[in-house]
Amino acid sequence: MSRKSHGSRRTFIAAAGGIAGALGAGAGAGGGIAFAGAKSHAALDMHTAQDTVAEPFFGSHQNGIAAPSPMQSHTYFAALDITATDRKALIAMLQTWTAASARLTAGRLAMAPATPDQPFDSLDALDLGPSRLTLTFGFGPDLFTLAGKDRFGLAARRPAALVDLPAFPGEQLEARHTGGAVSVQACADDPQVAFHAVRELVRLAGGNATVRWTQAGFSTANRTQGTARNLMGFKDGTMNPPVGDAAVMNQHIWVGSEGPRWMQGGSYAVFRRIRIALEHWDQMKLGFQERTIGRHKLSGAPLGGTHEFDALDLKAQDKDGNPIIPATAHARLGAPSENAGAQMLRRAYNYTDGASFVAERWPPWKQAMEYDAGLMFIAYQHDPRRGFIPMFEKMSRIDALNQFTTHVGSAVFACPGGVRHGQYIGQGLFEAV
Amino acid sequence: MSRKSHGSRRTFIAAAGGIAGALGAGAGAGGGIAFAGAKSHAALDMHTAQDTVAEPFFGSHQNGIAAPSPMQSHTYFAALDITATDRKALIAMLQTWTAASARLTAGRLAMAPATPDQPFDSLDALDLGPSRLTLTFGFGPDLFTLAGKDRFGLAARRPAALVDLPAFPGEQLEARHTGGAVSVQACADDPQVAFHAVRELVRLAGGNATVRWTQAGFSTANRTQGTARNLMGFKDGTMNPPVGDAAVMNQHIWVGSEGPRWMQGGSYAVFRRIRIALEHWDQMKLGFQERTIGRHKLSGAPLGGTHEFDALDLKAQDKDGNPIIPATAHARLGAPSENAGAQMLRRAYNYTDGASFVAERWPPWKQAMEYDAGLMFIAYQHDPRRGFIPMFEKMSRIDALNQFTTHVGSAVFACPGGVRHGQYIGQGLFEAV
Repeated sequence: MSRKSHGSRRTFIAAAGGIAGALGAGAGAGGGIAFAGAKSHAALDMHTAQDTVAEPFFGSHQNGIAAPSPMQSHTYFAALDITATDRKALIAMLQTWTAASARLTAGRLAMAPATPDQPFDSLDALDLGPSRLTLTFGFGPDLFTLAGKDRFGLAARRPAALVDLPAFPGEQLEARHTGGAVSVQACADDPQVAFHAVRELVRLAGGNATVRWTQAGFSTANRTQGTARNLMGFKDGTMNPPVGDAAVMNQHIWVGSEGPRWMQGGSYAVFRRIRIALEHWDQMKLGFQERTIGRHKLSGAPLGGTHEFDALDLKAQDKDGNPIIPATAHARLGAPSENAGAQMLRRAYNYTDGASFVAERWPPWKQAMEYDAGLMFIAYQHDPRRGFIPMFEKMSRIDALNQFTTHVGSAVFACPGGVRHGQYIGQGLFEAV
Repeated sequence: MSRKSHGSRRTFIAAAGGIAGALGAGAGAGGGIAFAGAKSHAALDMHTAQDTVAEPFFGSHQNGIAAPSPMQSHTYFAALDITATDRKALIAMLQTWTAASARLTAGRLAMAPATPDQPFDSLDALDLGPSRLTLTFGFGPDLFTLAGKDRFGLAARRPAALVDLPAFPGEQLEARHTGGAVSVQACADDPQVAFHAVRELVRLAGGNATVRWTQAGFSTANRTQGTARNLMGFKDGTMNPPVGDAAVMNQHIWVGSEGPRWMQGGSYAVFRRIRIALEHWDQMKLGFQERTIGRHKLSGAPLGGTHEFDALDLKAQDKDGNPIIPATAHARLGAPSENAGAQMLRRAYNYTDGASFVAERWPPWKQAMEYDAGLMFIAYQHDPRRGFIPMFEKMSRIDALNQFTTHVGSAVFACPGGVRHGQYIGQGLFEAV
């Protein structure tokens, strides 16, 4: 369980004092800088006025994978290219990020103001508190080797499980939503807090990392408390493993002794940007939708079942001998029993990114302006070769859901074990710890 | 003030009964439809379990302009093209929208289920309650005349104030964020509720309207209660007129007897998608940022002032005779005293739409992958010829903020007066009411 702490009033007054002290000397031009004095203490203290629940940054696992629960309502995910020219600069960046992450998740400014001339924080999340912010980091294939070049002396340390995903039937990947050397996922109960955190981390990278693509998403899990519905109107995540069951988590989600030491307690994230033809889906009859998913829409129960968490009866037949849960139903294809027991921890968000002209890839092959909306699929597993890859190999061929979904973005990241106090993000990849 | 009502438990049980009755007969295929029976009553009743505050749809003004306060935390704005071929179909669509809007804002399904074969609601917002949803409609220039053609016999009724905006220096408008015949703005305290409402209305248009562009946005106003900060970290909206002061609102925001009768009690919405070079802005010193805006970042007070709502002293000078609030400061250029007394009601949201390659238009003319993020500017006024147009004519030339902002989308809509019970949206445009 994650240890919750409440934003410390003392912390912020101390921070305000630091700002006043540091900036007071430089004030004057253009009417002065308003940080100095008692007024600024009170104003900075507003930082604690709202939603002061803070999630811990340090721990045995990275937060934002199996915790917190319920999942935060918003995410801002960034895939970065690394432009650092040497290992030393890369490590320095990770050290800076570690300090900033500890501050940001506590609801503090990204860095302590040092001089009046140094930007220290955009302040756009100043009044919003920690908002359960978590920051989760991953390393993509490009960090280990880029265009055949071992830039940071890491090529030999690339885990076998960090595979390049194969091409799947029907996917239409776009470079602007694909790949990346490093991932930073901010989750928070406010979209401004999530974006702010990524923005500060990229700024603090000081030119050693640049944005490759980003994706914002939302979920209603924190409002409904139960399993949230995705944009198709179905509950999404019912089959997630019980995160409180250490045995299950260690078997399926967390990397264990089979992986390199720096990955132990970590997990592999597979990201897929799945555009959904919602206009098409919304024209379908309820019964058709339910047979496509293999579940009842309202309750989330498997077809033939009564309650959301009822086991799928994959052998049940109707009076004509047809399977109650069709052979092409999404829920059947994703069931552990159909996947050699494999389980993934899904932590998916919905996305809406305006509208664009698109050609649907299934009948009636409509071409039109449609919502660029769908599912920001993120699934964690201890080995994608046993989790996502074989499962989606099969789904991509016969899942009835493919009539409405197109994978347009893809990435895979090795998310190291948790950061311990005194260490920096991914330290074990670079040195023995 | 808006009259709040709480989602009625009775309403939803009645709705559930209707679904059960209508769908019960059609259940069976593929394992049956789970709506029938006591279980579905309980499930649909979840609809009332969260955030049950409902905003009224009917009234003397359209809701979503001056109310509710604080502004909802999310918006989904859609500009539509009208593909209806005659006036009758257009009116029928507005009548359907009226009924659906009344239902959706009450937290109900988009329509009452009639037969099991008719899609009635995507159900993705089922568990979320009304979430203070408001739906605000507007008519754009294309509705009155499109390519010189008066499709609906409305050309002669186009209000003089519904002008085509002139070209402004520095704007870089993109067709995919510009124009539209009809606007639908959904605001709610949940992004899924806002998107759901627009999606249902477009579906119910039944081919008479298609999406031209959409824009999602967020604001922290409902969390901070006071003036929210935008992504630049400054409080945004301090100068808004007092919405409770009918005299001010009638003078500046609501259309009065100078306009056509169907616009009385309505207002003109100017939409601008303003991309902000946040990476550039975040490198600037605090003092520079404050002189650019003309306000202190932390308090929101005008330069030279102490409190957020202090009046701007535009004549104040420093010891060297320079204006405390610079001649090019954004706050000076927007002040009513500099604009013949004009005031607008700003109801702006922030947006983050991933990242894209861009060339900044000011030094250092950086070209890079940058956040496609910024401000979804929406301002209401009784006449854009006295509000936005002259104000932005000046700003677009000399505002110091232009170094960081680029207008990439634009639209203007005539938002009619409020819908009365028994009437339909914009009825006065089509017939005497």
